[in-house]
Parts: sequence; structure tokens; C-alpha cells
Amino acid sequence: MTDAKLDEILDRLDADLPQAIDRLMGFLRIPSISTDPAHDADVQRAAEWLRDELVGLGFTADIRPTNGHPMVVASTPQGTERTLLFYGHYDVQPVDPLHLWDRPPFEPAVEDTPAGKVIRGRGASDDKGQLMTFLEACRAWKAVHGELPRGLTLLFEGEEESGSPSLIPFLEEHRDELSQSLALICDTARYADGRPAISTQLRGLVGEEIIVRGADRDLHSGSFGGLAANPIQILCNALAALKDKDGTVTLPGFYDGTTDLTDTQRRDWEGLDFDAAEFLQRVGLKHPVGEKGRMPLEMVWNRPTAEINGITGGYTGDGFKTVLPAEARAKVSFRLTGTQDPAAIRKAFRDHVRSFLPEDCSVEFAEHGGSPASVMDVSDPAFVAAREALGQEWGREAVFIGMGGSIPVAGDFKRLLGMDSLLVGFARDDDRIHSPNEKYDVESFAKGARSWARILAALR
Amino acid sequence: MTDAKLDEILDRLDADLPQAIDRLMGFLRIPSISTDPAHDADVQRAAEWLRDELVGLGFTADIRPTNGHPMVVASTPQGTERTLLFYGHYDVQPVDPLHLWDRPPFEPAVEDTPAGKVIRGRGASDDKGQLMTFLEACRAWKAVHGELPRGLTLLFEGEEESGSPSLIPFLEEHRDELSQSLALICDTARYADGRPAISTQLRGLVGEEIIVRGADRDLHSGSFGGLAANPIQILCNALAALKDKDGTVTLPGFYDGTTDLTDTQRRDWEGLDFDAAEFLQRVGLKHPVGEKGRMPLEMVWNRPTAEINGITGGYTGDGFKTVLPAEARAKVSFRLTGTQDPAAIRKAFRDHVRSFLPEDCSVEFAEHGGSPASVMDVSDPAFVAAREALGQEWGREAVFIGMGGSIPVAGDFKRLLGMDSLLVGFARDDDRIHSPNEKYDVESFAKGARSWARILAALR
Repeated sequence: MTDAKLDEILDRLDADLPQAIDRLMGFLRIPSISTDPAHDADVQRAAEWLRDELVGLGFTADIRPTNGHPMVVASTPQGTERTLLFYGHYDVQPVDPLHLWDRPPFEPAVEDTPAGKVIRGRGASDDKGQLMTFLEACRAWKAVHGELPRGLTLLFEGEEESGSPSLIPFLEEHRDELSQSLALICDTARYADGRPAISTQLRGLVGEEIIVRGADRDLHSGSFGGLAANPIQILCNALAALKDKDGTVTLPGFYDGTTDLTDTQRRDWEGLDFDAAEFLQRVGLKHPVGEKGRMPLEMVWNRPTAEINGITGGYTGDGFKTVLPAEARAKVSFRLTGTQDPAAIRKAFRDHVRSFLPEDCSVEFAEHGGSPASVMDVSDPAFVAAREALGQEWGREAVFIGMGGSIPVAGDFKRLLGMDSLLVGFARDDDRIHSPNEKYDVESFAKGARSWARILAALR
Repeated sequence: MTDAKLDEILDRLDADLPQAIDRLMGFLRIPSISTDPAHDADVQRAAEWLRDELVGLGFTADIRPTNGHPMVVASTPQGTERTLLFYGHYDVQPVDPLHLWDRPPFEPAVEDTPAGKVIRGRGASDDKGQLMTFLEACRAWKAVHGELPRGLTLLFEGEEESGSPSLIPFLEEHRDELSQSLALICDTARYADGRPAISTQLRGLVGEEIIVRGADRDLHSGSFGGLAANPIQILCNALAALKDKDGTVTLPGFYDGTTDLTDTQRRDWEGLDFDAAEFLQRVGLKHPVGEKGRMPLEMVWNRPTAEINGITGGYTGDGFKTVLPAEARAKVSFRLTGTQDPAAIRKAFRDHVRSFLPEDCSVEFAEHGGSPASVMDVSDPAFVAAREALGQEWGREAVFIGMGGSIPVAGDFKRLLGMDSLLVGFARDDDRIHSPNEKYDVESFAKGARSWARILAALR
């Protein structure tokens, strides 16, 4: 594509911005809260709004029923270029507590703030505003080229905010239709300081629940203390021994499959000037814990963790009871990186806990999810092209970053459809997604659409 | 006292047994549940019943008001002999769940059972039946001698089953009246196999609650895992390090003041043929834990413990949340022996926990009781005399045993009134005190009264 054509598209987007915002406002007025059955009809209405918008743009589009809320699927004719699957979600989070909103959450408006204009309303950032950046780019593309970009499939989910129960069956059922050479996901944020970013690695997760059982009833510590096994003590012993005093996880083979930073990653991440002390200070802490000798960003993005997420046992009410409890419970999760194997880590953890168990005590384990890390193949030229395109739009170099958490859909695309995901989003850390007064910067919206136009051009 | 006089008292007790049981029945019919305000008038009525009984027997007796339920105090004229304070309590436990009783709990009856006759009803064993053994011994004594034993003071509490809130102020206020050379407490059981026993040492207790705090809010383990301190992990690390792998408590100075068994104790306790495996099997366990190289009974009676009684932190509901919690809590208690100092142990524990705390986390401690062990001076000839008297009555040697739990009143008598306690009781392990279908063996009642007659004679 010539630079002149791209410039024309970008100019078109700029000129059309007021109308684009108006369209987004219409979308935001639909309270498509997927987790609340009282809003089922609204979720359906949002799917219809989206389908109509896509059809109006020239896509072939329809609403596909699931056991829950429907999927909206759209496509353009196949071309000779790389085929792409765009993903977004049209459902939103609940709005409680309502009294903390400065305006009704489903009566969106553009507001002036000291940091610039923002679009205020539930879903403005997560994910209606973000997904509309892609549709606006397609609209301008069509205006200039006379047709939509070829080789595009679009998938919009209506259950992302309620656990995506229908996603995996739907991907399995429509594998042929949805498998493309690369997925584009617009549901992430720019880096903390606002520079454009592509999330190229997401940590995986293993969740385990443990119940240690001793005596068949709660015992009195006067009668039995000193003789009878205490399940809380056994649990604490096993959990304390999960890490050595340097914060290294002690499970045999735990670090198999982890990788050190590449030189490029190290240079990129050092360039982000991440201030761990400042980051922790925001939540009342000061010092990074965890493994020694690692960069803080490396610890959150490229190193695995073992964390105790919950523990309970014995008497926990007011006052005191000298009980030796019959059981104690904990929930433990591991964040995985590289090619760490969830099944192997689960087994090593269970063996570890069992090794602390006296012969007359027992342990029960319950599995709560297990998925490997998602690590994109950044040697794919698409990543370099997208990075350059973003850099041109934002006037500063785009960075390949990691994410400490998981984005399950990216893992599902890899596992079920065999494709990597280019995770590009324009949200900001302060967008208050999932909270009252959610907003999306007008800059995020306008330059987001321009960014997609550049990326689509670069990937042609 | 001549043997003939004692024999006469014992014969008198035997002949009077049916009437003694009738008297006890009258006492048991009063539902003096001290913890339930609906029974306040009944508790008062039980105090009056007891006062009238004592006056009828020739004691000077009155009801003394407190901020809660009253005390009943009685006395005989001073003599030249050793002065004694007898203690019992006239209140009883609640009776829930009522449907598990085979008869109305306050309509007592003598029942035939395969193991012999029993008196069934709430309070039969704890403590109305036990305290009446002493009154019946006094009654027979008076019938034979023409007067009550001199130098006796009797104290009956009405709040023992509801935490004894008025006891300490009452002891402080009536220190001169109540301080005698020895206390007799009838609120314990015979040894497990039924042989008579005197409890000569009771473990003390230090209770501590700990709250470890990290970030000022719950954090997402995806964003912060690997960087931010986890209060549950800190708590587990501190609690696991409380003991080494042999079960020895690691706090500096923890064992200061503990004593090894005397040769006599070791021989006595070995003679009890305590089967730890059988004892644990009853609650579904098999193996004694705790310090190596100690007799099981020694571990429960003469060794201190550190036990975690409760723990809670993070997400403990159904399912899973990958939260790094802002705080975690535990309740920990220590059982003390010998002259271990509660204050020193509390300080050592707090120092230990603090040593696990990163600089940006904090810990709060709350004190839940602290009392040293009660160790009676068994070189007092009264102990030997009482032991011999019990042996004569029961036809088998009485033993000096320990108790793993505390009997707070014994500690209070020592601390506030400066006297040791001779803890002699006739209850059985299977008396179901605090449970439905409480009972007291008629043998316990009959031979209990005879035992007190012998002990009173021996202490003259």
C-alpha cells in the first residue's frame, strides 16, 4: 500500500472523529452486563447493535447462539495476504457501587479533564471503546480503498466479563472458520507511562486447593497438645518450605522451561525505567520480595511465582479457643513462564505437600485451573511490522512487554487454533476498568483507530 | 482420730446412701445454667438450696452477691488443725441439643447400666454430685463426732461454667477469710482406668493472636505476584519455624523453668500403662508427634507445647481468587510447665514473629490470657496422707498425675491466696460432662464421700 493511501485513511479518521465518538456513545448506552441475568436482553441488544454496525460496514456478519450469550462473527472475502482474526468483547462489568459514579454509567459523555478529554461511561475502555478503534480503522480503509481489508475474520464475545464459559466450545466447533495466521486482540493497555506496547508474553497459571486432615474431630489442646498432629502446623510447614530464604521456589524441576531474558528484552525492559519502589508505594509497600538478582519487571513478567492466596483452619472468630483442628485448608497458585509444564508443577507440588504428612494424616487436593504461559514468536515479521507502525503513530518507540497475569483467550487461540496473538491495546492504567467512573481517553480512541490503520497497512 | 471413729463414719455413709442420693436429686432438679440469663432465678435458687443445706448441717453459711451470680461461703469454727478451703461450683452447663438426651436433663434418676448404677442428669458429675460427696462426708462426721470438722471454709461458685468473671475480684476482696493452708478442689476425674488420682500439676497457658499486614489492600497476584510481600507466606514462615523437625520449640529460652520427671513421677506414670496409640486411635490418629525421647504422658503433662489454634487469610470461599491479601491472622497458644514464665515466652514469640517481617510489613499482637503452670508441692505431708487415704478406700494405689489443661481456680488460689490445691475428684472419663446424658456413677458418689471422710481424718 502506498504511503499516500495510508495518509488518506489517517486523514479520514481524523475528520470523522466526532461521528466515530457518536457511534461509540450509542454502543455505550446499552447496559450489556453479562453476569447479571436482569440484563440478558441488553446483552442481546448489544450483539445486534454490533452485527448491524458490521453489516453496515460491508462485513458478512451474524449472531451465533451459544449456551450463554451469543458470539458475533464477521468476515471479509479471502485475499492473498496474511489472514487475521480480530477479537474483542461487547459485554461489560457490573456498575456497583452505583453511588460512587459521578454520572450514570450508561449515559456516557465526553468530559474535559486536566489530563485531556475522556469518554466517561461503563465499557468506554473495557472493551467497547477499544474494539471500536478497529471498526473505525476498517471504515476509513473502506472509504479510501473502496473495500474492506481482505482476509479478516472478527470474533466478538459477550461473556468475557463473566468467565467466558462458551468460548472454548465455540472455538472447538468453529476451528476451521476461526483459525487464521495471527490473532489481533484489543483488550490491553499501553505501558504505564503511555507509550505504545505489544504484550508478547503472558504468565500461565496453576491453581491448587489443599485440605490437610488429622484427627476425626477438633481436639482440645490441653488434652492432646504435644501428642496429636496439628493440620495447621503441617500446612504451614509445607507452605513455608515452598521457597528458600532467597525467594527461590524449592519444588524439584520447578524452573524447567523458564528462560532468561534475551539481550533485546533486557535492553527494552531496562528502557522502561520501571520504578518498583514507586509501584509498590502505591499500595503501601516499599521493597520488592522474590528471587534475588532479577530485575523487578523480570520478576513480574518473566519469572514464575508460588503464592498462597488463601488459608483457613481452626478457630478464627473473636476471642480464643485452644483447639487442635481436624483440618486446615489453603489455596495456592503458581504463575508460569516460558514452557513450564502445569501438570509437572502440580505433581511436584502435591509430592512436596505429601512429604510433610505424618502417616496418620491425609491430604486432599482440588485442581483450580492450569494453563501454560503464552509466549508469542516475536520473530514473526508481523510483530516487527506492528511495532514500527505503532512507533510511527505515537512518535515514540513501541515496546514488547510481558504481562504478569493471564489473558485466557490468547492461550485458547494458541492451544485450540494454533495461532499467536498480537495483543495491542490503547487503554491506560488509570482507566478505572471494573470500577466506578470508567473512562477512555479521546486520544486513546483517536490514535488507537489510526494505529490499527497503520498495522493493517503494514500487515498487507 | 481412732480407726474405730473413722469406721463408724464410713458405716454411717453406707447406711445413709439412699438418703444422700435423694438429697443430690433435689439439687439436680434445679436447672442452674449460669450462662443463660433465662435461668438466673434458677441459679439463685441453687445457691439458696446449698446455703440452706449447709446451715442445716451446722455450718455458718451465707450467700454473697457479686456482679454476676453469687458465691456461697460457709465455715466451721477454727481448730488447732490445718485449715482447709473446699471449692466446688453449683452452676451447670447448658443442655443443648435437648433431643439427644434420653431423659429430661433436670429430672434426674438412678439408672441400671451394664457398667453399674449411675445417677443421670445435668450436673450429676460436674459438679453437683462431686461437691455433695464432701457435704455427705461432713454430715457423717458430725453424726459420729457430734460436730463438724473444725477449720473448714467452703466456697461454692455459680459461674464456673461461664468463665468465672467474678472469681478473681471475690478472692481479692475476701483474701483474709479464704486464705487457708490448703485448698481441696473436687472438680476432676479419676485416672482413665478408674484408679484414684490426685492432680498435682496443671499446665499453664499463653494465648497470642497475630495479625500480619502487608499492602494496604488486597492485590492481584498477576500484577504483583513476585514483587509484593504476601502476609500469609510471612505468617507460615514464622509459624513453621516455631519448631524444628524433632518438634522442639525453637524460641530462645523457651524451655527455661521446665523440669525433667523425678524418679518417682517416672515410675508412677510408667505404672499407668498409658497407651498413646490407643488414646490417639479414639480420635482417628495413630502416632504421637512432638518432642523425641519423651514418654507420651510426659508430653501431655510435663512438657510445654506450641500449637496453632487458628489461621485465616486471603480468599477462603468456594472456587479460587488469585489474591495477595493485605493481611493474615493466626491464634497461637503455648502450654507451660514447671516455672516457665508466660511474659518471657510471649516476648520471645513476638520477637520471633517480628524477625520474619520485611521492613514494609507490620504485625499486631493481641494477648489472650497468660498463666504459669500450677505445680503443687507434693512434699507437703497432706499429699502423702491423702494419697494413702484414697488407696485405702479404693483398694488400689492412688497416683499423682498431671493435667494437660489448666484449672484456672487452682492457679488463682496459688497466685491470690498463696495456697496449693489438693485436686481430688471421682468423675470418670465417660461421664459425658458438658454433653447430653451426663451421669455420675453411684460408686463415684458413694466411695467419693467415703474418700473425703478418710482424707479429712488423715488431715486432722
